[in-house]
Amino acid sequence: MKIRVHVSLKPGVLDPQGRAVHHALEGLGFEGVEDVRVGRSIELDVADNTSDAALTDMCEKLLANTVIENYRIEKVG
Amino acid sequence: MKIRVHVSLKPGVLDPQGRAVHHALEGLGFEGVEDVRVGRSIELDVADNTSDAALTDMCEKLLANTVIENYRIEKVG
Repeated sequence: MKIRVHVSLKPGVLDPQGRAVHHALEGLGFEGVEDVRVGRSIELDVADNTSDAALTDMCEKLLANTVIENYRIEKVG
Repeated sequence: MKIRVHVSLKPGVLDPQGRAVHHALEGLGFEGVEDVRVGRSIELDVADNTSDAALTDMCEKLLANTVIENYRIEKVG
């Protein structure tokens, strides 16, 4: 089955990559951009019998740094 | 309004980051992982009157490298 894990920085954590993108958009003349945050999305193709606990475990141990990042697991199909 | 742009590598494009994650998951003892692809998700906070054309333009000019990446624009609210 296909799993998508969305990893984003927690609110309040400085996001230099997002700031760079924000700055670049303004430099290109785009107006009205108020904030930009950059995260990761990881698409996993796993065996159908993979448990939710195993998926959570993957996120906690490797995919996300839970000190500064939130993650969300989405089952795509 | 909040916009989320999902950027992922096109099928067939080599993804070394995904391979590293795949390898690391196997190293940690997780079984049944068949494939891993890593992409970006960019959250933008833009003015409510921002047109769809402007959003597409941002993706084409800066957020995605359309030679090797696909993008998908999602309106979050």
